[in-house]
Amino acid sequence: MKNSKLVELLNKMTVEEKVGQLSQISGEPYTSENFVVTGPLAEMGIPDKLIPVAGSVLGAAGAEANRNLQDNYLKKSRLKIPLIFMGDIIHGFKTIFPIPLGIGATWNTYLGQTTARVSAIESAVSGVHVTFSPMVDLVRDPRWGRVLETTGEDKYLNERFAEAFVNGYQGKNYSDPYTIASCVKHFAAYGAPEGGRDYNTVNMSERQLREDYLSSYKAAVDAGTELVMTAFNTIDGIPSTGNKWLLDDVLRKEWGFDGVVISDWGAVKELIPHGVAADEKEAAMKAMNATLDIEMMTFTYIKHLEELINEGKVSEDLLDEAVLRILKLKNKLGLFENPHREADVEKEKELVFCQSHRKKAQQVAEESMVLLKNNDVLPLKEKDQKIALIGPFTRDENMLGAWSWRGEPDTASNIIDSMKEMISPESVLYAEGSTLDHTDENMLDEAKATAKKADVIVLALGESAEMSGEAASVTDIRLPEAQMKLLKQLKALNKPVVTVLFNGRPLDLTEVDKYSDAILEAWYPGTEGGEAVANILLGNTNPSGKLPMSFPQNVGQIPVYYNHFSTGRPVESAPDQKYVSKYLDSSNYPKYAFGYGMSYTTFDYGKMKLSKETMTDNDTIEASITITNNGLYKGKEVVQLYVRDLVGEVVRPKKELKNFKKIELKPGQTETVTFTLSKDMLSYVHPDQKVKTDPGEFEVFIGGNSLVKKAEKFIYKKG
Amino acid sequence: MKNSKLVELLNKMTVEEKVGQLSQISGEPYTSENFVVTGPLAEMGIPDKLIPVAGSVLGAAGAEANRNLQDNYLKKSRLKIPLIFMGDIIHGFKTIFPIPLGIGATWNTYLGQTTARVSAIESAVSGVHVTFSPMVDLVRDPRWGRVLETTGEDKYLNERFAEAFVNGYQGKNYSDPYTIASCVKHFAAYGAPEGGRDYNTVNMSERQLREDYLSSYKAAVDAGTELVMTAFNTIDGIPSTGNKWLLDDVLRKEWGFDGVVISDWGAVKELIPHGVAADEKEAAMKAMNATLDIEMMTFTYIKHLEELINEGKVSEDLLDEAVLRILKLKNKLGLFENPHREADVEKEKELVFCQSHRKKAQQVAEESMVLLKNNDVLPLKEKDQKIALIGPFTRDENMLGAWSWRGEPDTASNIIDSMKEMISPESVLYAEGSTLDHTDENMLDEAKATAKKADVIVLALGESAEMSGEAASVTDIRLPEAQMKLLKQLKALNKPVVTVLFNGRPLDLTEVDKYSDAILEAWYPGTEGGEAVANILLGNTNPSGKLPMSFPQNVGQIPVYYNHFSTGRPVESAPDQKYVSKYLDSSNYPKYAFGYGMSYTTFDYGKMKLSKETMTDNDTIEASITITNNGLYKGKEVVQLYVRDLVGEVVRPKKELKNFKKIELKPGQTETVTFTLSKDMLSYVHPDQKVKTDPGEFEVFIGGNSLVKKAEKFIYKKG
Repeated sequence: MKNSKLVELLNKMTVEEKVGQLSQISGEPYTSENFVVTGPLAEMGIPDKLIPVAGSVLGAAGAEANRNLQDNYLKKSRLKIPLIFMGDIIHGFKTIFPIPLGIGATWNTYLGQTTARVSAIESAVSGVHVTFSPMVDLVRDPRWGRVLETTGEDKYLNERFAEAFVNGYQGKNYSDPYTIASCVKHFAAYGAPEGGRDYNTVNMSERQLREDYLSSYKAAVDAGTELVMTAFNTIDGIPSTGNKWLLDDVLRKEWGFDGVVISDWGAVKELIPHGVAADEKEAAMKAMNATLDIEMMTFTYIKHLEELINEGKVSEDLLDEAVLRILKLKNKLGLFENPHREADVEKEKELVFCQSHRKKAQQVAEESMVLLKNNDVLPLKEKDQKIALIGPFTRDENMLGAWSWRGEPDTASNIIDSMKEMISPESVLYAEGSTLDHTDENMLDEAKATAKKADVIVLALGESAEMSGEAASVTDIRLPEAQMKLLKQLKALNKPVVTVLFNGRPLDLTEVDKYSDAILEAWYPGTEGGEAVANILLGNTNPSGKLPMSFPQNVGQIPVYYNHFSTGRPVESAPDQKYVSKYLDSSNYPKYAFGYGMSYTTFDYGKMKLSKETMTDNDTIEASITITNNGLYKGKEVVQLYVRDLVGEVVRPKKELKNFKKIELKPGQTETVTFTLSKDMLSYVHPDQKVKTDPGEFEVFIGGNSLVKKAEKFIYKKG
Repeated sequence: MKNSKLVELLNKMTVEEKVGQLSQISGEPYTSENFVVTGPLAEMGIPDKLIPVAGSVLGAAGAEANRNLQDNYLKKSRLKIPLIFMGDIIHGFKTIFPIPLGIGATWNTYLGQTTARVSAIESAVSGVHVTFSPMVDLVRDPRWGRVLETTGEDKYLNERFAEAFVNGYQGKNYSDPYTIASCVKHFAAYGAPEGGRDYNTVNMSERQLREDYLSSYKAAVDAGTELVMTAFNTIDGIPSTGNKWLLDDVLRKEWGFDGVVISDWGAVKELIPHGVAADEKEAAMKAMNATLDIEMMTFTYIKHLEELINEGKVSEDLLDEAVLRILKLKNKLGLFENPHREADVEKEKELVFCQSHRKKAQQVAEESMVLLKNNDVLPLKEKDQKIALIGPFTRDENMLGAWSWRGEPDTASNIIDSMKEMISPESVLYAEGSTLDHTDENMLDEAKATAKKADVIVLALGESAEMSGEAASVTDIRLPEAQMKLLKQLKALNKPVVTVLFNGRPLDLTEVDKYSDAILEAWYPGTEGGEAVANILLGNTNPSGKLPMSFPQNVGQIPVYYNHFSTGRPVESAPDQKYVSKYLDSSNYPKYAFGYGMSYTTFDYGKMKLSKETMTDNDTIEASITITNNGLYKGKEVVQLYVRDLVGEVVRPKKELKNFKKIELKPGQTETVTFTLSKDMLSYVHPDQKVKTDPGEFEVFIGGNSLVKKAEKFIYKKG
């Protein structure tokens, strides 16, 4: 349909029909032709008049189900404007990939794009048009349960994955039927709640907001994301969902975003408990005047927008602009021509959870795992004839993690079956040892008896899926006591202990480290998690993941992140003196740093070479380094480029990731990696909120993690 | 001297002499007439030319010593401009009062003023002219060691104490010889370092900075403080010490401050490690152009200002203005007429640590202590014939706390001697039980044997003075393990256990609570701490302190403070639901709340009455409540007034302290307390940085702590 046709359509719509487009509800009323409402929507008091005119549905999937919903809806729709179906396809539809934090740990944006591509295919054939993904919130606090949904603490890494996910979902254009529209979230800075407590207040300067937090959303916008979701939190005291500065001035006017802005679940009505709206009418007014297009799962627009327009408190133009944006999105997806789009029962059977998708999930899972420690125990060796697999994640627990709505835990591979298949059933011994949070003498005795028969002990420990994710903030980020007890008692047997961790956040692993000879961070690895872990333990795959978020020494050290500012009294300048910026009882540094991860092989970095010592405005400098695989295994390495601005108008981070490249080397192979440095990579947000580069000296670091110390210097000067 | 004379003097000065006035060094060179420099200043590379022209000295005290320093200096001074002596008189000179956090706990600003008055008298006769006090930094993170130097987490309470301290030090005017000038610190927001790590980065929005953090400095400025000290930290990436916006635009131009701004120790040179100055010359330029008058203990001004002026990078007018401010301060204090001011060996003997001052210290100490728990154990009773006093603070440890430079720990009273004197030596049994961080079987056995002979166990536990204070940040805020072990073993004897705590920060007392029948927070109580504790334990004094800072449940919950914002999903709205703002493993609320503290008696609050239901612009509302002492002891109660703005343009705190009154009631006595509410008390900083009041509904709470629930409502409307 041409845009002029959309305007014609808009002109035919009543105000009620327009406002309907701005409302998103669950699909329940459309499961029959009678639009009967029971259950949650009824409890929430949905106005009857909304049902025939609602513009979109969330959380409905399945080719047949969604075709029916659409048919039922359209039968009664005066203007035959199709519904658009949206859903939370976060790390896979039915083929579940590792949690996004694990995807971030691959440092492989091609794989990131692949996860979105596969999700798009499975979603599209199941009748879903839009996913509420990617979540690109920058995070520095592992107490927050939703760190699992992000790619971590670094804006550059987040930006690259934001692009990759958007490109993966949306493809090149929507004439490709296996595409869905993406909705970047949560705009803005939802990842910085005070105290790591979900939905809590966010406060920071505008400059920091722009410098650290906004850029990953902007990367998604620049990559063409069709939608943006607002965050639950306030930004300097104004909830994002009613924040005109954020949505209209920054997102639309400054960034030129012309797509649809949708609230998070119930967030419009939450302006009331936030204390910026006295009632639903004021909430509707604030959200609409902030240019929020779609209200999710509350009904303030349908109840009050018409009245607000009549009173002159909201302009009808604003309403028309919002409706037109939604109609354009529906049109882009071809819904006017084909309201069912790609929803197809046959294709659904063929493509959803197909072997090829599962294979990709396995590849991503293997590349997401981070080897944190290895005292020459891994990979398991010939001499390890008997392996004791013990712990709650060995066999029974969910490998999928939060937000795996359509995933089926039972279909996921588990470690024990995978190991048995790969070696032999009799080599693999099993005991539960502990549930997630309970053990007892019997369980411990059985575990010890089993372990005694083995050459090596593999413990699969972690958090339950409910312990991380939305509304799963915690004040204690250690493993549950029962599991620690199991670990300690098994370590006392004096056999090698390999701890494999399943969790959604950086944990305090200080004690785990003491009692483990090797630690593999497996995150929630998804559908093929068991097989992926087995492949890594047995050395079929060499681990290559690198942490996308720092693991703290303890919860009292939070926030700890690699790109912090220099202080006036840096601990490095005088580590033994009292009056420097440090703790009396803990290091300033994390237990495991951003960018860190081990391999079964060894990568040696040569001396970095810069092509020039001075850069001017239209100039670039090449930074090259040779990396040699000096070990015995083929392996992948993430070569990381960091820059430090030594003197700025504003204090600069001690290091900033500016590029990275994942390479693969055979034993003995050498490769030269070259990064190009340009002026733009040295710029940052100044106190006047403008992005500029300070002339002066810069340091360049290239290495395998953020702790890299060797640096070369160059000078940038204007001209 | 008239101001015109000061200008004449200024005009006679060379640039070097001018810059000298802007430099503060220690007194060491002036201990002899030869200006010999050895020790720290020599190590720091002090330029020789600075010594004859330096304008001020820090850390020198003693009537005779300072008279000599001044005489030696003036003998060689070309223009005979006297030195000004400054020092850290934080909570007493030699008569040591409780730490400021304890003074804050009195909620008695008259006593706060008294501590400053006594400090001023002792300082003045000892030759000190300026104290680097009060510290009014608002704090929300008990990991930070310097919370002990503040009066806590609330801006209103901090403002009132800021005024009280300035008035106490400076008196009505400097013709009163027993006055010193005060220097408010640390401007600005030094109390909000990230991670609670001293000297670390501070970031917040300008609006929050103005709303929460700046007002206590402004209260000191409005009360007439002569000096302001800059903070070590950055404000949105610009170190305070080189922050022109902060020092010139806000402090001088907006607030009209015309006094002297001094750096903290070494902070000018720290602009280099901060990364905003390439070298000392640039550091000098940035500090001077920010209108920083005095550079403490580094030498960038004397080395580079003349050159910077010659190069046109700093204007000589700026230098002249700074020098004139310093000359004016010296003149105000009468130093041109009498360079020794009140330094007097005879008065020093008479007044320093005199009986009357010590009596005041005891009164403040008693009123600072907060009874956190009392299962009818305190006060100790007739039946408690034998009392076992056990623990590291019973006899030996320092009661004075950090920043008690001239205080002498040996002269402080201790609990055991005080108790023996008050009751009888044979009633009081003693065992050490544990040092601060060590215990063993022998010590524990001895403690248990002693405890078994007693009717009640009093344990004096705490942090060493070194564990809190400057550069004493920690990640674990629990008591040391050795002391916890002692507590647990003694509690197992099934006798009543009273825990008395000596510490400088809110601790995690979750475990202490489990094993104690009563808990008394004694802070570091100062010179008369032992006697004060004994008086409270024995019921000679009824405790009346209230917490000026929340005590968290655990370190993972930080920050926790009473006046947080409402969220869109407040836990109170649905405590049992998952998707509200809470932790899975901890309450959102502190263990002991702001404003909380028990008494030996009971205060019953009647129903609040408001004089009107609606307020207009020039209107006030009276809020009255009757309080009755329904217990058996005479006692003091801090009646606290809180307000909540129900709907704002910006999200408002759930409660804000707006006034308080400390009253004393005999058993059975009733008093009506009336607070006046006015429009100004309802205002806050809006997004345009202006202070305004939103029309609408407000709630008023009056009670004995910040948890008070009963509220009355009124409406404010314009007109």
